[in-house]
Formats: sequence, structure tokens, C-alpha cells
Amino acid sequence: MKKKFSKRVLLIAFLSSMVITTMSGVIPSFVDAKKEDEAKIKNVILLIGDGMGTSYTTAYRYMKDNPNTPEMEKTEFDKYLVGLQTTYPEDEHENITDSAAAATALSAGVKTYNAAIAVDNDFTNVKTLLEQAKEEGKSTGLVATSEITHATPAAFGAHEISRKNMDAIADDYYDEMINGKHKVDVMLGGGLKNFVRKDRNLVSEFKKDGYSYVTTREELIEDNNKQILGLFAPGGLDKMIDRDDQTPSLQEMTQAAIQRLSKNKKGFFLMVEGSQIDWAGHDHDIVAAMSEVKDFEDAFKAAIDFAKKDGHTLVVATADHSTGGLSIGANGIYNFNAAPIQAAKRTPDYISNLIAKGAIVEDTLKQYINLQLTSQEIQSVKEAAATKDQTKIDNAIEAIFNVRSFTGWTTGGHTGEDVPVYAYGPTKERFSGLIDNTDIAKNIFNILKSGGNKEQH
Amino acid sequence: MKKKFSKRVLLIAFLSSMVITTMSGVIPSFVDAKKEDEAKIKNVILLIGDGMGTSYTTAYRYMKDNPNTPEMEKTEFDKYLVGLQTTYPEDEHENITDSAAAATALSAGVKTYNAAIAVDNDFTNVKTLLEQAKEEGKSTGLVATSEITHATPAAFGAHEISRKNMDAIADDYYDEMINGKHKVDVMLGGGLKNFVRKDRNLVSEFKKDGYSYVTTREELIEDNNKQILGLFAPGGLDKMIDRDDQTPSLQEMTQAAIQRLSKNKKGFFLMVEGSQIDWAGHDHDIVAAMSEVKDFEDAFKAAIDFAKKDGHTLVVATADHSTGGLSIGANGIYNFNAAPIQAAKRTPDYISNLIAKGAIVEDTLKQYINLQLTSQEIQSVKEAAATKDQTKIDNAIEAIFNVRSFTGWTTGGHTGEDVPVYAYGPTKERFSGLIDNTDIAKNIFNILKSGGNKEQH
Repeated sequence: MKKKFSKRVLLIAFLSSMVITTMSGVIPSFVDAKKEDEAKIKNVILLIGDGMGTSYTTAYRYMKDNPNTPEMEKTEFDKYLVGLQTTYPEDEHENITDSAAAATALSAGVKTYNAAIAVDNDFTNVKTLLEQAKEEGKSTGLVATSEITHATPAAFGAHEISRKNMDAIADDYYDEMINGKHKVDVMLGGGLKNFVRKDRNLVSEFKKDGYSYVTTREELIEDNNKQILGLFAPGGLDKMIDRDDQTPSLQEMTQAAIQRLSKNKKGFFLMVEGSQIDWAGHDHDIVAAMSEVKDFEDAFKAAIDFAKKDGHTLVVATADHSTGGLSIGANGIYNFNAAPIQAAKRTPDYISNLIAKGAIVEDTLKQYINLQLTSQEIQSVKEAAATKDQTKIDNAIEAIFNVRSFTGWTTGGHTGEDVPVYAYGPTKERFSGLIDNTDIAKNIFNILKSGGNKEQH
Repeated sequence: MKKKFSKRVLLIAFLSSMVITTMSGVIPSFVDAKKEDEAKIKNVILLIGDGMGTSYTTAYRYMKDNPNTPEMEKTEFDKYLVGLQTTYPEDEHENITDSAAAATALSAGVKTYNAAIAVDNDFTNVKTLLEQAKEEGKSTGLVATSEITHATPAAFGAHEISRKNMDAIADDYYDEMINGKHKVDVMLGGGLKNFVRKDRNLVSEFKKDGYSYVTTREELIEDNNKQILGLFAPGGLDKMIDRDDQTPSLQEMTQAAIQRLSKNKKGFFLMVEGSQIDWAGHDHDIVAAMSEVKDFEDAFKAAIDFAKKDGHTLVVATADHSTGGLSIGANGIYNFNAAPIQAAKRTPDYISNLIAKGAIVEDTLKQYINLQLTSQEIQSVKEAAATKDQTKIDNAIEAIFNVRSFTGWTTGGHTGEDVPVYAYGPTKERFSGLIDNTDIAKNIFNILKSGGNKEQH
């Protein structure tokens, strides 16, 4: 692996001030294409569990295990495992990927530098699967539990030299047209703050162009418009177990997206991200991690259920990388104890927020954690609470779960091991074995280019 | 998963004093057998990288990466990945497996308690793949870099209620006959101390029965006998990068085994273990871990090379579990730096042993580590050396590599995440997707029972 010297530094000043319109095409040629199988595919749903490495999917299986049966029950993912993918970026300083470089690999089939949003190492825009689908006349959607302008969805619908430019990413969703049309028909997630700003109100602009705009679960369910912008939080959504009933689940957003997109006879491309598995990993929060894998599993199941009925849908699910160095078992113990994790009714983030605001430590822990905590554990949270620093309170609560469950962590960042790939539907075998993250995009490009090609029928 | 209450405790006194002869057959029935494919298989080579989870195989790919090419080069394993397997044991106290329970799952298709050597939770012997092969008239072999009586090989050729009974396991290799013959034709590895003891000399007994006995690489290469006992160390072999030229590599032992076993027209079953990947993981020694993955990769390649020429050989490689909570990247850094690991000419174990015996710290580090060490690093080893405690010296040297490479660890024990499965040859597709460790044995039992069955041709 050569660490490519990009022209990045020199070009930043120049590029950040210009509108990027050129697209470098991706030419996938290595696939021994079975045209018949491709022709069967009208729709592609790509699901990305951000940070969801093998330790997460396995820990989740331990969580779901029925203690009254001899075997460990399989998760929804397990039935569809086809292999693993490599995730390394092409970055001159780092060989473990961030979510932007990985999402660009998955969206455009191009390795790039960490932080890149669908641009290559020379800052040239690279065409994404979503854009290809739109060019083919398909409908398109992005669903996430982070800001819908966060790195992963952004790399499918925007082009920016840095993932940090979330306002510019929201602008791209509106401004970057394909054949005179907006390229993303369905956008569901968080990130209102990036759409309604002092300098611009993209919600008004999208509404003016015929998009529905919803901000609650109820509004989402009641709406029937083909084009929709749903922003359910200023930033990221709450974690699944912390959500109120006005925040949709990832499954509900996925179903709402599929319902709309599947009205297009030419088919659709949908990307769904379980965004906050990764955030939980960065935070070393096993409760939140399992909450978010569950949210993602439900969304995956909704995609599979649709694909099974439809017969012309390819579903691919994977992770962009793993996060936190999560291990099942820690400190020499040959046990992963799911019970304390299952006992949490809210995440440590949620509980610590209440305590930081003045809620009584012991009562609050008792209310949201269904465990007999030791006086030592309670004391550790009280000591953190005395600092009034929410991060310290959060860490103290997380430590209770990590210690009791025997969960290990090594880093606040990402890790480089291969991550699982799941696939269902025609051509699923192309995703099997060990592939690279770019192969996922290359395979889907081939399908989008030939599957909807009328000349072939 | 139900934690099965075994009759273990009550039965220990009784069982440990009796010769176990009954075998409970394993009846695999779930496989939709393609008899034609099975019939093509004469030989089965099962390779087990002890502790070699996905973090190890990926870290090893970073190690092998050519910095002058844009892509990260694939390892030998990568070409043959077919899926992952679950590893959990059936133990009333622990839900993360040890090597004995995992090896029993892989050898007999039976989940059991940690420490069990081819016995189930009721201490009943369970028939192993090696025994099935011998019953079918095939030749059989066990190759390892640990004692050949260590948990993994033991679970293929012995039956004991505890892996700790390594002398009894050596006895089993000699005493447990199948149709009046010894069941293991080729035994290559370490563990002389378990064969030549005050109470018994199994080397003499095997020699008397026609086995060759070798103790050096040269003797192994010069020997041509079909049955052989090769014991190259009192306990485990040295790690690959620490070995002298009189100790064979795992590849050489594998080739020597195949050469002998393949003379049998009815075919053979061979189990090869890369035993010390796990030991390196327990020790948090990334240098040793990469040394042992390399040794195992070379052996895997030898098996694949034979299978490609032969055309009637199934090769399956996997891990029994992962170890240590190894992570590629640590402490927030998005980089795995292979260079310092590559700079080690010997393992920290080897170097610390010299220092503990009085070798000068600075000179010894300079001799065996091709890095400009900082004065702080040298000082940390000097301080450890002052204690004359080899473990402390070892830990200080390991820390240099872990810190420089950004390698993380969470436990001195095993971890529970799914591990990779590699397969080549007829019926390899049966090992694809997510399977259980018991499925590997069940699949191979089906093949052994039908593949050599003359009635079918």
C-alpha cells in the first residue's frame, strides 16, 4: 500500500472556493458479470452499520441469546453473512479508515484520504452509486440516525473536501442537480441545524420544490409524498433506547423510504446507516452500542422483508470499519455477561445528563438501571457527579457496565480489522469471500448500469 | 444458550480412574449432501490457527503490505475466505471458549465444557474426525508447534476430562487402538516431556511398534517411514523467528506429514495447528503473534499447494477463538505501524530471557531490535532488568512494540467474536456463510463417511 501524496494541501484554498462539477467515472471491469442476474435487479438497498465490526455483531448475538435453549440464537444478520471486506483508506498519514474515506469507497469505489466526501486524493469529485441510480431514472434515498449530512450519507449525495463541512453538504443535496432534478428524493435522519441556518433555509427551498417536510414520527407516517425531507433532531437522533415516541426508529425510516421509493417503476437506490453504533464505540458505551445494533438489525430486517416480497431487490449490509477495540471478554475472564447490559433502560449518556443537571445520583441510577448496584459503584458515580462534569459521570456509569459485562476497549478511535458483509438477492455471491470496500461499490455500479438497461431486454 | 449442568463434579473421581472406551457417535444429518462432490474427496487437511481471530489475520496483512503499491496485498488466507464461525462452548460457568472445548467442537462436532478433550458434558467420549478417518482405513496425522499433547491436537487423538492431563493424552495416543492399530500415524510437534517420563517411555513403545522417532529438522527430512513420532522440544517449539536450524517450521512438518500420509491409497486426515498464535496473544506480544501467523500461513500454503496438485483434497482452515482482545490501532491513533514489529529479529521472550540471565540490556536490545530506541525505552527495560524478573523484562520489551505499532490488548484470556473460515477443494461451499464450530466437524464427518465409501462407485 503506497501512501499517496495528494495535492490536497496546495489545492485546499483553491478548491474550497469553487463549485465542483466534474465527475471522474468509475469503470468496474473485473466482475465476470452474469447479465441475467443483473437484469433481475431493479432496486439496491445498501445498509452500513457504522463501526459495526465482528465484535459488535457477535456481542449482539450474546445479547439476544435465549438462556433456555442449548444453542446461541442467530441474529438477522447471521443468516446472510457472505464474507468480510478490507477497509483501509488511501491516506498519506493514516492507514486505518475514518467514516468519510470508507463511505467514499462504498459509494464510489474509490480509495481516498480520511475526511474526504466523495472526492479522490486530488479533490476531484467521484461519481456515487446514488448519482448513477438517479442518472438511470431511479429514485434515491438516504436514511441515517446521525445528521443526514454526516460523513456516511454525505459520501453518497455530496462532494466536499472535508466531512466537517456539514452545511455545505446540505447545500450539495439541494444544489447538485442531475438532469435538472434534485438527486436525493428521500432524506430521513437528524441534522436540522445544517438545513435551517442564518445564511440559508434549505427546508423552505426543498418545500418550494415539492418535498414534504416532517419532524416527527407521526408526521412521517401520515405523509405520502414521493419526495421528503425528514429531520427529527437538531443533530443526531437519540439512541434507540433513549428515544421518545415522536422520534422514528431506523426501521420506521427505512420502511417509509422504501414505501416511497418503490413507487418508481425504474427502481431505486437506498442507503441506510446505523450511524451511532460507531458513536457508542468511540464513547466505550456497550449499552448504547447494543441499542444501536438492535436499531440497525430492525432496519436490515425491513430491507430483507421487502426484498423477499419484491424479488428484484439486492440488499447488501456491511460496516465501514470497527470502533473502539471492543472485545467480548476482558481482564482474563472467559465470560461475556449480557445481563447487566440488558438491565439498562437508558444509555449512560442519558442518565449522566440528568445527573449533571442535578438529579439525585442514587435515585436516578435506580430508575434507569435494573441492577442491585454496589455501594462502591454508586459512590463512583457520586464522585463523578461532584465534579459536575457530564463526561466524567458518563464514564463512571459506562464503567459499571463494562466491568460487569467483561467488555474491553483499547481506543477512542477506529480499528483496522476486516468487517462482515451480508447480502441477499440476485448477484449476492459477488459480495462473498474477502473483498475490498471498493468492490461493493464496483459491483453495485455494474448492476445499476446493466440491470436497468432496457436494450438488454 | 442453556448452561448445561454436567455431572462433571460427581464423576471426576470415578472417571479419572477408568479406561474410557465407549464412543458416542455423531450423526450429522443437516447437510444436503452432494454425494458426487464428497466422492471426489480422499483427503482432508484441517488447519487451526489457535487464537487467530480477524484482528490477527488483518494485522498480518498490514505486516505483509508492500508500501510501493497502492493496494494492500492479500495474504494466502485471504484468497480462500468463505465465512465466519461461532465459537461459544457449552459450559455452565463460561460462555467464551477455551482451546479444548473449541477443539472438541472442531474434532467431534460436539459442544462441551472448557478443558474437555473429546468428551462431552457427561464425560462420555465423543468420536473424532481422526478416529473416523482411521476407521475408514485412512492414514492420520497431527502436527503442532505446541506440545503434540496440547489441547487442540489432543482433542483429535485422545479423550480426557481435562486438558491438563498431558501425560495421559500421550498415553491415549499409544493405548487407544482402532481395529488393533495406533490411531495417529504421524505426530510432529513438541512435548518430549510427556512421552519420556519416569513412569513410562512412550518413545520406546512407539519405536518398538515400527514408528520412526526424530528430534531434529534434519532427521525429519531424512526419514521416509510412514509412521513417525517427531518431538522437537521438551515443551512447545520456539516461536518461528526464534528457532534454530535444527527445529523444523510448521510448513516443513506439514509437508513431511503430507508426504507420508498421501502414500495411503484410501487417503488421509491431517490436523495442523499453529499453536502459539494464541500464546503470543495471551502474552500481548505482537512480534510473536505475527511470527506465528507467518508460520501458520506457510503451512496453510503447503496444504493448498498439495490440494491443488492432488484434486481430491479438501483444505479447511480456521481459528478456535481469538485471544487477548488484539486491536489494530490503539489510544485514538488511526494508524497501525507495522515497521517496528518488522524490526524485531527475535521475540521479547527470547530477548528478555537473555537479559534475565545477565546480558547487557542496551547491547542486547540493539542486537535483536533494528530500531533506534529512545533512552526512555531503554531505561524502561533497564528498570525491569533490575528486578531480575523475566516476565517484567518481557513486558517492558513488548510495551515498546505495542506502543510504537499502536497495538491494543484488553485481556490475558480469550475473546468471543466470530472467527474466519477458509476452505479450498470439493464441498468447500458447505463451510461458507456463518456456521458454528461444530458444523465444521459435522461437514467433514459426512465427507469421511461417504467419500471413501466404495459402494457408491
